[in-house]
Amino acid sequence: MAGTGPFRDIIDGDVYKYYAEGEWRKSSSGKSVPIINPTTRKPQYMVQACTQEEVNKVMEAANAAQKIWARTPLWKRAELLHRAAAILKEHKGPIAECLVKEIAKPAKDAVSEVVRSGDLVSYTAEEGVRILGEGKFLVSDSFPGNERNKYCISSKIPLGVVLAIPPFNYPVNLAVSKIGPALISGNALVLKPPTQGAVAALHMIHCFHLAGFPKGLISCITGKGSEIGDFLTMHPGINCISFTGGDTGIAISKKTGMIPLQMELGGKDACIILEDADLDLAAANIVKGGFSYSGQRCTAVKVVLVIESVADVVVEKVNAKVAKLIVGPPEEDCDITPVISESSANFIEGLVNDAKDKGATFCQEYRREGNLIWPLLLDHVRPDMRIAWEEPFGPVLPVIRINSVEEGIHHCNASNLGLQGSVFTRDINKALLISDAMETGTVQINSAPARGPDHFPFQGLKDSGIGSQGITNSINMMTKIKSTVINLPSPSYTMG
Amino acid sequence: MAGTGPFRDIIDGDVYKYYAEGEWRKSSSGKSVPIINPTTRKPQYMVQACTQEEVNKVMEAANAAQKIWARTPLWKRAELLHRAAAILKEHKGPIAECLVKEIAKPAKDAVSEVVRSGDLVSYTAEEGVRILGEGKFLVSDSFPGNERNKYCISSKIPLGVVLAIPPFNYPVNLAVSKIGPALISGNALVLKPPTQGAVAALHMIHCFHLAGFPKGLISCITGKGSEIGDFLTMHPGINCISFTGGDTGIAISKKTGMIPLQMELGGKDACIILEDADLDLAAANIVKGGFSYSGQRCTAVKVVLVIESVADVVVEKVNAKVAKLIVGPPEEDCDITPVISESSANFIEGLVNDAKDKGATFCQEYRREGNLIWPLLLDHVRPDMRIAWEEPFGPVLPVIRINSVEEGIHHCNASNLGLQGSVFTRDINKALLISDAMETGTVQINSAPARGPDHFPFQGLKDSGIGSQGITNSINMMTKIKSTVINLPSPSYTMG
Amino acid sequence: MAGTGPFRDIIDGDVYKYYAEGEWRKSSSGKSVPIINPTTRKPQYMVQACTQEEVNKVMEAANAAQKIWARTPLWKRAELLHRAAAILKEHKGPIAECLVKEIAKPAKDAVSEVVRSGDLVSYTAEEGVRILGEGKFLVSDSFPGNERNKYCISSKIPLGVVLAIPPFNYPVNLAVSKIGPALISGNALVLKPPTQGAVAALHMIHCFHLAGFPKGLISCITGKGSEIGDFLTMHPGINCISFTGGDTGIAISKKTGMIPLQMELGGKDACIILEDADLDLAAANIVKGGFSYSGQRCTAVKVVLVIESVADVVVEKVNAKVAKLIVGPPEEDCDITPVISESSANFIEGLVNDAKDKGATFCQEYRREGNLIWPLLLDHVRPDMRIAWEEPFGPVLPVIRINSVEEGIHHCNASNLGLQGSVFTRDINKALLISDAMETGTVQINSAPARGPDHFPFQGLKDSGIGSQGITNSINMMTKIKSTVINLPSPSYTMG
Amino acid sequence: MAGTGPFRDIIDGDVYKYYAEGEWRKSSSGKSVPIINPTTRKPQYMVQACTQEEVNKVMEAANAAQKIWARTPLWKRAELLHRAAAILKEHKGPIAECLVKEIAKPAKDAVSEVVRSGDLVSYTAEEGVRILGEGKFLVSDSFPGNERNKYCISSKIPLGVVLAIPPFNYPVNLAVSKIGPALISGNALVLKPPTQGAVAALHMIHCFHLAGFPKGLISCITGKGSEIGDFLTMHPGINCISFTGGDTGIAISKKTGMIPLQMELGGKDACIILEDADLDLAAANIVKGGFSYSGQRCTAVKVVLVIESVADVVVEKVNAKVAKLIVGPPEEDCDITPVISESSANFIEGLVNDAKDKGATFCQEYRREGNLIWPLLLDHVRPDMRIAWEEPFGPVLPVIRINSVEEGIHHCNASNLGLQGSVFTRDINKALLISDAMETGTVQINSAPARGPDHFPFQGLKDSGIGSQGITNSINMMTKIKSTVINLPSPSYTMG
Repeated sequence: MAGTGPFRDIIDGDVYKYYAEGEWRKSSSGKSVPIINPTTRKPQYMVQACTQEEVNKVMEAANAAQKIWARTPLWKRAELLHRAAAILKEHKGPIAECLVKEIAKPAKDAVSEVVRSGDLVSYTAEEGVRILGEGKFLVSDSFPGNERNKYCISSKIPLGVVLAIPPFNYPVNLAVSKIGPALISGNALVLKPPTQGAVAALHMIHCFHLAGFPKGLISCITGKGSEIGDFLTMHPGINCISFTGGDTGIAISKKTGMIPLQMELGGKDACIILEDADLDLAAANIVKGGFSYSGQRCTAVKVVLVIESVADVVVEKVNAKVAKLIVGPPEEDCDITPVISESSANFIEGLVNDAKDKGATFCQEYRREGNLIWPLLLDHVRPDMRIAWEEPFGPVLPVIRINSVEEGIHHCNASNLGLQGSVFTRDINKALLISDAMETGTVQINSAPARGPDHFPFQGLKDSGIGSQGITNSINMMTKIKSTVINLPSPSYTMG
Repeated sequence: MAGTGPFRDIIDGDVYKYYAEGEWRKSSSGKSVPIINPTTRKPQYMVQACTQEEVNKVMEAANAAQKIWARTPLWKRAELLHRAAAILKEHKGPIAECLVKEIAKPAKDAVSEVVRSGDLVSYTAEEGVRILGEGKFLVSDSFPGNERNKYCISSKIPLGVVLAIPPFNYPVNLAVSKIGPALISGNALVLKPPTQGAVAALHMIHCFHLAGFPKGLISCITGKGSEIGDFLTMHPGINCISFTGGDTGIAISKKTGMIPLQMELGGKDACIILEDADLDLAAANIVKGGFSYSGQRCTAVKVVLVIESVADVVVEKVNAKVAKLIVGPPEEDCDITPVISESSANFIEGLVNDAKDKGATFCQEYRREGNLIWPLLLDHVRPDMRIAWEEPFGPVLPVIRINSVEEGIHHCNASNLGLQGSVFTRDINKALLISDAMETGTVQINSAPARGPDHFPFQGLKDSGIGSQGITNSINMMTKIKSTVINLPSPSYTMG
Repeated sequence: MAGTGPFRDIIDGDVYKYYAEGEWRKSSSGKSVPIINPTTRKPQYMVQACTQEEVNKVMEAANAAQKIWARTPLWKRAELLHRAAAILKEHKGPIAECLVKEIAKPAKDAVSEVVRSGDLVSYTAEEGVRILGEGKFLVSDSFPGNERNKYCISSKIPLGVVLAIPPFNYPVNLAVSKIGPALISGNALVLKPPTQGAVAALHMIHCFHLAGFPKGLISCITGKGSEIGDFLTMHPGINCISFTGGDTGIAISKKTGMIPLQMELGGKDACIILEDADLDLAAANIVKGGFSYSGQRCTAVKVVLVIESVADVVVEKVNAKVAKLIVGPPEEDCDITPVISESSANFIEGLVNDAKDKGATFCQEYRREGNLIWPLLLDHVRPDMRIAWEEPFGPVLPVIRINSVEEGIHHCNASNLGLQGSVFTRDINKALLISDAMETGTVQINSAPARGPDHFPFQGLKDSGIGSQGITNSINMMTKIKSTVINLPSPSYTMG
Repeated sequence: MAGTGPFRDIIDGDVYKYYAEGEWRKSSSGKSVPIINPTTRKPQYMVQACTQEEVNKVMEAANAAQKIWARTPLWKRAELLHRAAAILKEHKGPIAECLVKEIAKPAKDAVSEVVRSGDLVSYTAEEGVRILGEGKFLVSDSFPGNERNKYCISSKIPLGVVLAIPPFNYPVNLAVSKIGPALISGNALVLKPPTQGAVAALHMIHCFHLAGFPKGLISCITGKGSEIGDFLTMHPGINCISFTGGDTGIAISKKTGMIPLQMELGGKDACIILEDADLDLAAANIVKGGFSYSGQRCTAVKVVLVIESVADVVVEKVNAKVAKLIVGPPEEDCDITPVISESSANFIEGLVNDAKDKGATFCQEYRREGNLIWPLLLDHVRPDMRIAWEEPFGPVLPVIRINSVEEGIHHCNASNLGLQGSVFTRDINKALLISDAMETGTVQINSAPARGPDHFPFQGLKDSGIGSQGITNSINMMTKIKSTVINLPSPSYTMG
């Protein structure tokens, strides 16, 4: 159970501690931040409200620990990560419990988030051994006018201290997808978890603690954004920010200076369905892609663009599947669970009302109890409705009927977001040419958008982000290049 | 005109000289080998019949020149290759003329072979600058138990002397696809051109001579296979053989010792056509793939495997296009020109007669005049006919009607050859799963088999060859690895 | 001659035009900006003072042109760049003349800057063909729990519009090192040249114009920083900034949002000399590294850290070489020419006076005439002097005597800058361990710091910049990743 | 203990079984081959003398199993290899015992061979996941004349059945360095262990059996070379041979046809010592490099080439260390143990006698008891002595005094072998220029030659082998390339 057994050290009374310098600590602020359970809408947990001074100390410790960590053999870094991964999987129970209570994630999904996170950490360890362990060797005589008397050896070195800011919807998985790459590359890591999801994150961090990483290398700060948000992101001790979330990311990018940013800020992922598509496959993917975790996913299907001639069939097939979705509390592993907060539910309701006013067809009756919203397909949505463009981040999915592929592509590309897109067609030429035309970081052919498998590149274009993720790309983003040039007195061609 | 102008130095009387130690020479044998024009069936040119002693001298010179060449800056090697490429394109006329006379290549195709060869040499030069100019830098602490106190720097170095043996059908292009990679990598190069095509090759080599490569680095030996064939391939001075041709390659591989072999020995490339294919596209590709240069191409379509339900339509469409093929002499740029030799024509006729005896349907009347064979589509070919399995290397194309995709794949995979295959279907899933199932080096989706573009990998499985070609792969095959390990007294993590 | 012959189109009266939408234009502002010749300290040239509206138009045109350019075959993009490179080299005379007049670059160096720029453009073209032409193909079954039913194809795509801001000291070379990578990658390019150097840049841009690039793809805006500086760098149409210069870069990085930055902001490159070094080699490199182009180079040797026991000898050897430096006007190809501006000369003088006040040893008499400052070695410099830490960007070089290698490394690492460092020693272990310890983007062993050969990675740590340059890295920085995932109905292992 | 506990299934009476089709079997030959303990010179173990028919069955099973294995997800292949690695390390005791008895390997070294083998298998698994899981994606428009309408996807696929033939000196480690790469790449594997070492190999194979690999995928055949040697290497079912050993390799290469060969055939590794070397470091490496496992290593130091001026000191330092080597049985973990066989001891004695006859200086008295030969340094060896050129593969080390570096390089390069070389010098320029000049696969700077760390490339030039090893290179060598070209009806630039 959360906060018990091996996790009893991370709680004091009913307030979870923060993690600094290899210890679990209470904030000197004496204040705490409550975490509201989306299902009960009552406080579930309490976390420390850290101070700016505590942030400063964490930075100092991170800086010192990083210097030593960067000189630790790659295989030893990997060994520690493998250990953390094993501990994480071993303790999947209590961590998943937090996910259920904090973010209303369905119970089974919560468990699989933790397991998948362990796999990700292990894969990252081995990937990093290879990326950091192999540099380049260049010679001068490639370039006109030079003899081969200069040998350039370049390698990837850590950035220093990485600040990881994951979102509420995957507070464990989207934390380790930043922590793993940061650590294997030789960086120190400061985690600022989302408020909702913070306790799951603290449990996860404790698994790294138990694995035996050096003191100060990893820290986890909780608190109020107003107090430590900008202070953290603009802190001179931070050498890289890896952020997943919403528009806040754009604000951060404007305040930060000359440090690498890796950001993923959401999407309005379109699903284009052509006449020749496997419509059962498409419908199944729309439901899975649109309603999993109640639509609270960056890569959820957020708008269906279906060719008019097959629209009726597709809508019917989708409705048949929507009818089978179980709505209820996450503890019972329901398909549709309460959305993260009341304000989120209100925002969704606003989009629904706007669509209603403007004449969208409601395939189901709109129903809401507290934060729980029943799944809703909106047909005949038109570009003048807000839901055609905005992310509900809830179980409400608009269908726009199109008369041509071009119309679908145009709608997709008119968005300021460009995370993923998907297209359903059997035709190899159409599939690839539409992928070409869609201005999104990834196009899925015959499947709903999805992050993962985690070694695939993952990136958003336009306002959806900067930098590419996926295990390999994240490791690369968290390193910089250093080169050494050996200047020889005469050419050396290594035997010719 | 061949043998005149800048090429007057390469001929003595009516016998073309061979190229050794940077000079054009007559063989001490006093003998020559005649080259029969496939169209006239009369001797067109004469080349030197070199002796084993002359081979020995060439090897010695190659060995000496290579040592210096290997220490020449990459950009200078590239510069010479660019120059040779430009000269080659400048003199496309006389070289193409040789191709017309020696191998009856249609005039336009002959010109484009030379131009494409120039492009290939230039691309190879730039590719090689990069491949040879970039090595690897590895550190010891990737592997368990090691600190980072060993730096391994590895680079690609030349093999030494490369023997290039191209086939008659592309005596220029398939020569430069071996010469370019060999030279940019720092190797010396000995060319043994095919008899038919030797004079075109000698002209091409003269372009390299004019470019100013060091003496001895490039040689071109002509002569009788019985006298110098095995002598060359088993010569201890040879460090690599790049061969394109037929079964001879297998024999060579059994005689040679511990040297890298790059071989391409032909194919029986199947073209599988599914019901949902674009049948016009398929028919056009069958005709182009099957009858270009009278079918004398490794990657010619050599058997059509078409689903019964669309077979009649496909055959009809193909026949309509075959009817438009112009048959005649290469000088008039006809589509179908005489095959390379009388024995080749006889072999083709044998396959045709066998098919006739066993009941194949002749879509056209079989017609032959000398070496000129009219294009012929054989429908209803069955697995018991020789032409179902053997390579005609002529303008005769068998069609096997299949009842399922599996039957087609089975036929393709039952061959001992595995160069390329092709499949025509609009279905993305079928296309990729059939590509998966076909045991050939390359599978073309919705196009006839083809070598090129020349930077694509090109390789045969099973008896179709060993090693991979294409510019990048050929350069890699013509190098070996050398590494230097710097052992440090204490770990060095390059600043972490 | 500048502004004549093929360049007559780029001038109107005595004011040089700016380049937009494929044309040379006068600004609607009716204003111009004078360029002061550092030698005469009088206006030499005039350029347009462009307006914000003109910037907007350029952005629009760039955006439109980029869409088409991105769909142009790689080899065609390369062909145009090769053509521009050839034209650039052909017209090296007038462009070099501008460099002499605008930035007082010694005549020979000015010519070689242009020639080297042409080589750079050609190399970039070929490199880009390879980087853009080769993506990755990943399969899903690498990651635990997956079958091989997902194929991920990823490639590098252009960012959109790149803003290039080169510095005054290499207005041609550091412009093309941004332009080449931007264009071959499929981006549009807006150049904002430095005021001093603008006319050389305009001539250079005209070479690209003559090569025949599409209208609007390349633009060159001149004007006042106060009017269009921030407007340009914060313009929403800009998708990437590549900047070389000083502290302005840090300010830019704080204002810009979520776009990739490639910045190089100068260095305080140290040269550490050990007892066992080849002291003649070291002295020669100090003089070349410290005084070339009067020290106005990012990678100039900016502080010598020499072990006390060999300091006298080193100083003596350096002084002997300094005595031979010719001081005078750039037209006469002198070694030491006037620094870029009076304010720059005043700043240098300030550093010299500070050093004098604090007791540095003047190896030569300090002498200045206008912007011309005689070369000066300051011995016995101590950490409390400004010149120990600040960049003079002039022909004044401080020597700090150290008692241990550690002291040298400490001084180097105490700087907020980290561009390059160099170490002179014969000892292989010391060389590599010191390179390890120096916190700079590159460490040169036994040579002065230097950008180039241009395909080597080039980057600064700390306040010296963000991102890595060098041809390959610059191309990579000016692209983003796009991936397509083909989802198959059943696993496909490509034949196993 | 060997043949007991979990290993009791692999023995029948006192004869060890062979491994085929997932079972431990007795040969139908009814015959066995004895294994002589080098220490006792008496039979220690017995293994099956397999028949050609049994080889045929193994090949059939391998072929069938490989087809399925090649379609097993990469992560599952890796999982099985990790399991085998863990089992191997768990049972290091009995396997090491075999190494002690069969090949007289000192007890501690025997254990560490097994442990290192486990690490190697795990590292190989993860490396293979990455190499096999990432292919290339090429587009057609890199090459002149093409639009981007062809997408080429290429991947690495298994070769089929790999025959692994390790040598007696590392029968476990040099077996798994072939088995690991073969299996992770999707190949089947047939192991022919050396006679001496066969029982250790059978135990090792049992660990793979226990890990649960599919039946038939792995086999281990024992028997007489005269009966099954050529039969195996020339078997048409074999698609690759990975061989480590002596001249037999050259013979194999001449008999085999068109299959990839990976061979390492020994070396005569020279150790060049310069005046400025750290002589203590050099002496320590000479003793370790020359006498470890009694000199029975491919990469043993086989000749010391020392500059005359420091030769006395070096010889003295080496002698002081040789004096401390413990000579005796492997069970007592002595430094010098009996050589592998009586014929080997006789061969060594022949070299010693020849050196004696020709006047070499014996630094120690020559002493031999049975197969046990006391360590012997031979000073003042000259090129006319056999030991200057031949591999003793025993604890006898020649010292040649040289007057210049050139003389040392000349001696090194005059050998027909070219595995590794080493050079001791502090001078960075000399170190790299000598590495350049030495014609060996690897040059070690300031350390004795050595295979490993196992991810470093490892290869011999000239008669020392073909192909490169090391984990990455071995995996690559055991794959071939397959490509699929998707031909599109119009260009697709992926959004540009």
